Order: sequence, then C-alpha cells, then structure tokens
Amino acid sequence: MHKIRVNANLTYEVNQPTTLLLNVAAAKNLAHQAVDWENLTITPDISRDDMVVGSEKNSITRVCAGPGTVEIEYSAILSLSPITESPPSIDQTDFKFLPPETLPYLNPSRYCEADKLTRFAMAEFGAMVQNFERVTAICDWIYSHIEYCGGTTTSLTTSCDVLLQRTGVCRDFAHLGISFCRALGIPARYVSGYARDLEPADFHGFFEAYLSGRWYLFDPTRMAPTDGLVRIGAGRDAADTPFATIWGHASLLKKTVSAKALTEGPLGQNANDEQAVAVSTA
Amino acid sequence: MHKIRVNANLTYEVNQPTTLLLNVAAAKNLAHQAVDWENLTITPDISRDDMVVGSEKNSITRVCAGPGTVEIEYSAILSLSPITESPPSIDQTDFKFLPPETLPYLNPSRYCEADKLTRFAMAEFGAMVQNFERVTAICDWIYSHIEYCGGTTTSLTTSCDVLLQRTGVCRDFAHLGISFCRALGIPARYVSGYARDLEPADFHGFFEAYLSGRWYLFDPTRMAPTDGLVRIGAGRDAADTPFATIWGHASLLKKTVSAKALTEGPLGQNANDEQAVAVSTA
Amino acid sequence: MHKIRVNANLTYEVNQPTTLLLNVAAAKNLAHQAVDWENLTITPDISRDDMVVGSEKNSITRVCAGPGTVEIEYSAILSLSPITESPPSIDQTDFKFLPPETLPYLNPSRYCEADKLTRFAMAEFGAMVQNFERVTAICDWIYSHIEYCGGTTTSLTTSCDVLLQRTGVCRDFAHLGISFCRALGIPARYVSGYARDLEPADFHGFFEAYLSGRWYLFDPTRMAPTDGLVRIGAGRDAADTPFATIWGHASLLKKTVSAKALTEGPLGQNANDEQAVAVSTA
Amino acid sequence: MHKIRVNANLTYEVNQPTTLLLNVAAAKNLAHQAVDWENLTITPDISRDDMVVGSEKNSITRVCAGPGTVEIEYSAILSLSPITESPPSIDQTDFKFLPPETLPYLNPSRYCEADKLTRFAMAEFGAMVQNFERVTAICDWIYSHIEYCGGTTTSLTTSCDVLLQRTGVCRDFAHLGISFCRALGIPARYVSGYARDLEPADFHGFFEAYLSGRWYLFDPTRMAPTDGLVRIGAGRDAADTPFATIWGHASLLKKTVSAKALTEGPLGQNANDEQAVAVSTA
Repeated sequence: MHKIRVNANLTYEVNQPTTLLLNVAAAKNLAHQAVDWENLTITPDISRDDMVVGSEKNSITRVCAGPGTVEIEYSAILSLSPITESPPSIDQTDFKFLPPETLPYLNPSRYCEADKLTRFAMAEFGAMVQNFERVTAICDWIYSHIEYCGGTTTSLTTSCDVLLQRTGVCRDFAHLGISFCRALGIPARYVSGYARDLEPADFHGFFEAYLSGRWYLFDPTRMAPTDGLVRIGAGRDAADTPFATIWGHASLLKKTVSAKALTEGPLGQNANDEQAVAVSTA
Repeated sequence: MHKIRVNANLTYEVNQPTTLLLNVAAAKNLAHQAVDWENLTITPDISRDDMVVGSEKNSITRVCAGPGTVEIEYSAILSLSPITESPPSIDQTDFKFLPPETLPYLNPSRYCEADKLTRFAMAEFGAMVQNFERVTAICDWIYSHIEYCGGTTTSLTTSCDVLLQRTGVCRDFAHLGISFCRALGIPARYVSGYARDLEPADFHGFFEAYLSGRWYLFDPTRMAPTDGLVRIGAGRDAADTPFATIWGHASLLKKTVSAKALTEGPLGQNANDEQAVAVSTA
Repeated sequence: MHKIRVNANLTYEVNQPTTLLLNVAAAKNLAHQAVDWENLTITPDISRDDMVVGSEKNSITRVCAGPGTVEIEYSAILSLSPITESPPSIDQTDFKFLPPETLPYLNPSRYCEADKLTRFAMAEFGAMVQNFERVTAICDWIYSHIEYCGGTTTSLTTSCDVLLQRTGVCRDFAHLGISFCRALGIPARYVSGYARDLEPADFHGFFEAYLSGRWYLFDPTRMAPTDGLVRIGAGRDAADTPFATIWGHASLLKKTVSAKALTEGPLGQNANDEQAVAVSTA
Repeated sequence: MHKIRVNANLTYEVNQPTTLLLNVAAAKNLAHQAVDWENLTITPDISRDDMVVGSEKNSITRVCAGPGTVEIEYSAILSLSPITESPPSIDQTDFKFLPPETLPYLNPSRYCEADKLTRFAMAEFGAMVQNFERVTAICDWIYSHIEYCGGTTTSLTTSCDVLLQRTGVCRDFAHLGISFCRALGIPARYVSGYARDLEPADFHGFFEAYLSGRWYLFDPTRMAPTDGLVRIGAGRDAADTPFATIWGHASLLKKTVSAKALTEGPLGQNANDEQAVAVSTA
C-alpha cells in the first residue's frame, strides 16, 4: 500500500449561463483505490450536483455557472493497494467464457474502430500466445511505432488516424491499444486519471484489458508506472471521460494537475514486462 | 394494448468451433412490452448460456457451435401497451436537469460522430423550438434528404458517411437521427427490433430520444408505425446490438424475419406528427 | 482594362540545406492578365531556377537555401482585361462536346472527392437549368451554408470534411465548389492568386468552371470581385498550387501579401449574379 | 524485343443516351512500346471521337451510344523493347534536380494521400539508401503486408484505407506504392495496362517511379513480370485512368481481357530485385 496526493485546478472564463460536467475526482468504486480524503471547491460557491454516471460509476459533478470566472480546485489523498501478479500466469479469457459485463468492451467505439483493424491486429499479433504478454507486445509496438508528440492530434483523432500519422499523445496511445485488444477478442476500456510524477504534469489516459478474470492496467506511453495510476473515470474511450463537458460557453484559462507520492511505495515499472497490475471493483 | 407475433429464423454454416452471441429475443426490461410467450430453439440442441448484457439489459444467448449447420428459431407473442402522448406537451430536457443515466447517450459513438456534426445540426435545427417537434423535424429532414437504398452501405458506414452519400438503410437513418439529437443536447440511443408488417420483412433499426423525462420512439424511415415497434436490444449505436456476433467462422445461409399483428390494435402513425410513443423501463 | 499592384513577402528561418519551390509570381499564360513589370528578389542572393510546371504552366522558382534567414520579395504590376459576359448566354457544355484538355478537371482529386458527392450534388443542384446560373447557385449555397472561419481547417481538410463541419477558409470554399461542379459534369479547377483589397490581406483561393467553351471565374467566399482576381497558379486543387513547397526544413517567420488597384477599373461584383468573368489562355 | 498480343472485350447494356470515354487502347507515346497493329471495333458502328488526353497523352475514344447493347472490341499486337538496367546504378534524383514535368507527381491525389503518410514512410523507409532498391523495398513491404483479395475494396478506397485494412487488389497495391514514394520525395505515377499471362486475366494496375532521370516500372503485386507490362494510360492515380468513364447509364454485361506473348521474349522478373525496367517517352 502506498499513498499519493493528487491535485487539479481548472479555471474557466464563462460568458453565458453554462453547465459543466466535471470529472476530476478519483473513482470511488475500486477496492484497490481508497480515497482517504478529498475536497472539491468551486469558486464562486455555486450550486452543485454530485452524480454517479455510467456503467463504470464515474464520479461527476454538475455545476451551473453564470458569467464570470469559475475556479475548480480538487485535492485528494489516496491509498493505493495495487494487486500485482506475475505475467506468465495470466491468459486471455476465451470468448465463450467472457462475463456479460465485459462484452460491451469488445464493441468498436468513437475513437476505437476495432472493426476496421481486425486484419492489421491479426497480422501483427495474431500468431502470439494469447496471454498477458501479448497485450504487453501491443503496448511495445505502439511505443516503438508511434511518436509521442503534443499538438499533433485533436479531439477528433481516432486510433486509425494515429496508426496512419504515427504520432499522438497519451489518449491516442491508449485508443490504439484498446482497438488492437478488441480486434483480438480482448475486452478493453479507456481510463482517465492521475499519474505519479508525470512529466509534463497533466491528466493522463491509459487503458485496462480483461485477462484471466480481472482487468489489468496498461500504459503504452511508458510515462508512468502502472502501480501509481489513479483512476478518475472509465468508459468505452475518451468520449466517456472528458475532465469537463461544457454546455454553453466557457474558455479554459488555466489548468494545473499534479500527483505526488506521499510514501515510499512500490517503485513500479514503466513497462508491464515484469509485473502485472490489476484493478478490482469494490 | 395490442398483440404482435414475431419470428426470426437464422441458419448458419459453421466451419470450425465458433461462438455466437445471439440478440434476437424481445427485450424483457420494458413495462410497455410484455412477453406473453417466447421460444428460442437451436438445432442441433447445443449448450446455451442466456445473459443480460449492458446498461440496457439486452437479452443475449451465447452458443458454442461445432462444425455443421446451426439453425436458430425464435418466436414470441408480445403485448404492447404503448404510451402515447400529444406532441405539443413534450419538451427537450435542459442539460442541467438530465438524469445521470441519460448522459452517456450524449457522447459520440462508433457510428454516431455527433461531435463532428455540431455546426451542421445547429445550422439546420438550432433555431427551432426545443421540443418533440424538433426531433420530428430531424426525422423529416432525414426522410427527405436520404434515399433508402439497400446495399449502399456496409457495417463500416457512419452517420457522417450517410450525410455525404445521401443513401442508406434503416440503421443508417437511425444513426443520423441519433447524431443530430446528441449534437443538440438530446440524449439518443439506437434500438434494434421487429417492426409490424415491415416491407421487405427484416430486422429493423430505429432510435429513442429523451424528452420531458421519458424516452420516445422515432423512425426516420417512416416504414413502420412507432407504436408497433418491438425492442430487441438498445445501445449507443448498432455496434451494441447486432443480431449475431460471431467469434470463429460462420456463414449465414438463410435469414427470415416476420412481425404480424394478432389483434386490431392502434393503427399507428408512420410519422411522429400526431402521436408521440414513449417507452418505459420496467 | 485596369491595373493592379501585387506584393508578397515571405521570410523563412532555414535550419538545414533546404529546397523551396516558390509559386508566388503571377501567371504568364493568360491573355487577359499582362505582367507589365515584376520583380522577385531573394535575400541572400542564392542561385535560383525558374520553371514552368504542369499543364497550367505555373511559374515556379526553385531555390536551394542553406541555414539562415531567407527573404522572398515579389512585386508586380499587372494589366487586367477581364472578359465579361452576360450570364444568361452561358450554358454548360455537354459531356460529349467537352474538349480533351478539360476532361482531367472532371476527375476527383486529393481535396475534391467529387465521386463521393454525386448524389448530394444531384439532389441540391441536379434539377436546375444547366447553365452559368447553376454554378452561381452552387456558390450561393456554399456562401450561405459554410461559415468562413480561419483556423478551423488544416492542410488535410477536404471538401467532404468542409461539408460536414460547415466551416472553412477560401481554399475550402473553392474545393467544395469544384467538387459540386465535377459531380455535375462541369470541369472545374483550383486557382491560387491575389485578390484586390482582400480583408484580411493574404493569398486567395478560388476556382474556374468550364462553360460554353471558356473557363469562368467563381469565388464562393464573395470576398473579392472576380474581375480583380490575379492568377498565380492553377491545378486540380490546392495540392497543385501551394505558395511554397519545402523540402528540408524551414519555418515561416513572416508573411505579408497585398493587392491594390492602381487605376479606377471596373468595380466588379462580389457575386456572379450580374456579370460573368472569363479567363483566356494566351 | 518481344511481341505481345492484347485483347479486351467490353459489352454494355445502355438504357438511355450515354457517352462513354474508353481508355483501353495501348499508349502511343512510348518509345519502348510500338503498336504494330491495332483495331478498335464498336458494335453497333456508332460515331466515335479519338482523343489524346492529359499530360500523359492517354488514347481515349469517346462514343455516344443510344439505348441498346454496345460491344467494344479492342485488339493489338505490340513490340516491347524494355530498357533494362542493373539496379545498383540507379539512384533517387535529389529534389533540387527533379525536372519540372516530374513535380506534379509528388503531389497528393485522390487515392494517394502521400501527405498523410510522411511519418509512416519515413519510419519504415527513411533510413534506407536513396536508390532503386528502396523502391523495391517499398514493393516488398506492400507485398508482405497487404493481402491480395478481390472484392475487399471499392472505387472509393484510398491508399490510407488499404494500409489500415491490409487487403486490396492491384490498383490498391499501386496506390500505396505511389503514396510511399511521393512521401519520400520520389515522383510516382499510376499506370493502367495489360499484363502478360495475368491470372485471373483482367486489366492491371501498377506504377512508375522516377529515379536517375528515368521512369521505372514497379508492380507490388508481383503478379506479372515488369518487362511484359503494356501501358494503356497513366496519371496521378486510378482516377485518371478508368478503362471506361460513363456519362448517362450503362451496365457492364461482360468483360474479357487477355495478353499473350507471341515471341519468346525476355522471361522477366516478377520482383524488381535483379532487373530494373525503364519506360521511355517517344
């Protein structure tokens, strides 16, 4: 078990009555991720509505802001008890045994057109043993073929775009990993979150794949150890987990994000070669 | 209340051990759609696994077939008690009051890239009064601008493709309706089902939009009265509701579908001009 | 006849040996566009190679720059003798009479996927009389449906993208006009150029359509009178007419463009409603 | 020198007055491809118009057919004198020395979006020596990564689509080769033609790349020896070289194509490993 402190500050200039859905708070539905303390302050102190949204029970706060500056400040201290396992013991679950709740995560989605990449995935990864190491191989392939380069993608960029243009950021890396997994029959979902000591500091995007009866964490960017990842929200892809959805008009003036270790926890691995990190639903 | 008999027969040639997820049975989670009797026969009598999948609780049967011919025969008698209302009383629900369970149906999805059509939807429908009639206007626009023409689209075709090529089939019409609704802040979901006296007889695809606290049925093809529609499954878009998902290899040899009224029920309206038909979750 | 002075200044920071193809000089192959005087100065005074490229005989200068700052300064005084006609006398040329040199301008190209827009074009413009006014109607449709908005498109944006997103800049407006024309059997080509008193001052993009045995100028942005347009280059679409093609690495530090009337020439029309302006090859 | 006999028969059912542009006759503008004898018979004997179209001087015949059956029969005997060279002596021409007439073949086109594949091409082929062997390596990559599979692509399929879906036919293979070449600064153009003993017999599509001052033939399908290829037409991509362009309405009832060696000519090589085959303009 190790402790981590996360912080996000978002400041918006709002020009007209605007509703914001904020998804910055740590997820509450995970057994391995306990929220010791958290605080979400909105300035001015406008009315808010805390909700649980979607099959992954994302913690979303809805606020209705009038014209003016709105500052959102979230801080939390979390206890992470990542479940680590040895990769060789983890196999892909045969399609005929997949539990019903994992099946929607095989379907193609807005940014993960797995249906278009079936032959591609089979050609590159189809002959490999169907286990944890195959998903690691997918992440390695992405890491070595896609250049991490800020500003080269937009909110419209899909996994197919990334595969052609060969650049992207964390969300694009995750989308591509998800697409390949789904194309191979491995349920996979997108996760937005905080990552310990991320450089440059920002929200992070990674993914989970379902193997041997559990969801395992993968981060093809290798920018953060998977046992230090904090989930904010999860869903089909990034369309389900924006840190803010704006209905009206608001300009983001400032965004600062941080995640710092408070204890000397497990060192973690940037790659998944030696350690598999699972998540567990509470 | 009126009664309807539905039937689907699917025959596959299976060449290797293959798992099929069948989604042909009528939905069980709707208050207005009671299943009086149903029967799903699979020949040969292989083992099967009945599941409830996804947030819409779709009734899915998983079967593992060996090589040989597999015939799936589904029949049911349903009592439909559609909730009809007068359109003028139905308004769009403001974004700030949308219930949490409707929010995922605003997100773009594989076939409904609502995020790419915001300006298009605002230009065509943005100035209209935000009520039931606006969704009817969307359906009218689709009906008059898109030509119904079998064979012009594939399983890869999205709502943007349909908008450019100006042709499609029922699923494409529904996808476009969903995209426009979401772009305007109206939660919308795809429904696969049976439609009374559809010509030519086949499965049907339509959509539901969330207005005034309920989900209402819309069918931009105008090929069937909305009060005679039977839901099989619902989801983000057609990616969530195929009548069969095949893992392995199976060729569809034969498909026959029918839906016949057993009672003289409400005549129904092909368009939504005079009558709004709501669905209700049990 | 009226006189116009055009000017373009491009300054690049070059980091490694880099070859630039510059296409900023006024076209020399047009009977109605006489170059009275022109000067292209490159600083430092590196070697240059003046070429005529492509079936439209674009005037291109190739320079090989070493590391350092490179400034390109082009100025010219032109005499324009636009051929104006009365729109009612101008008809579409039947496909069977189109001259061979116009046929390639019916083919789809990188940014003008006319083949994807056949039904769209037929639905919107197919029933109109096949004459000059139909192309004017195309321009009107673009003007009223697409919002001119800088920064909403990139060098990857095609006419289909523009049609979906409903925004673009001059080149996007022209690409869409070209696609609609080609889809209707009207040869159309892209033109890059200078436009008198354009606000904000910049290079401009517009198009020519072949009707009644001549090429006529059209500008769906309505930002400049067509009788004050100066051609730099022409081609299938903007892929053939960039003001600079860079092979190596160069950053554009500064770009200023201007085009000023020197005489009180024809006032011109922003729209093509009352006057058709033809181009003629020398 | 070796002789080859080519034949194409196209039969259409024409339902309304329809104009066809036929591009089935062997090119006349090549020094190494002499037309000893040819005959184009159209039944019924309707009026025809022989034209030379585009910068590659394609031989196109325009016919105006009324309702009824139209049969086009083309036969020719050709003398091919392919210019063969040893690959090691052939280098890429530096961008600063490319002749003006080759420059348009660096631009992206409808099916060859070279601009979207720059990083992809640089990552896969950027580090190789810039010579003939690099283009051979491109063809080898296509041959080993793309599955030749009829019916998997349509007239809308681009090189980016092919790269994602990993299947295609000859024209798709050629488009991808062209895109990679252009992305690397190598002018490349599409060629439609006849290929000796092609199985199954049909028209063929391949490409030419400009190296060391000549255009060299490449066929990434490896289905035919490059020294037995006969050019019909050339252009930016397949959009410039359809065997028939139809304006009106005509259904293709029958298509037979053949190309047989009449002499024991050079055996040829399916791959370009040991022999480079150049084309020369008359």
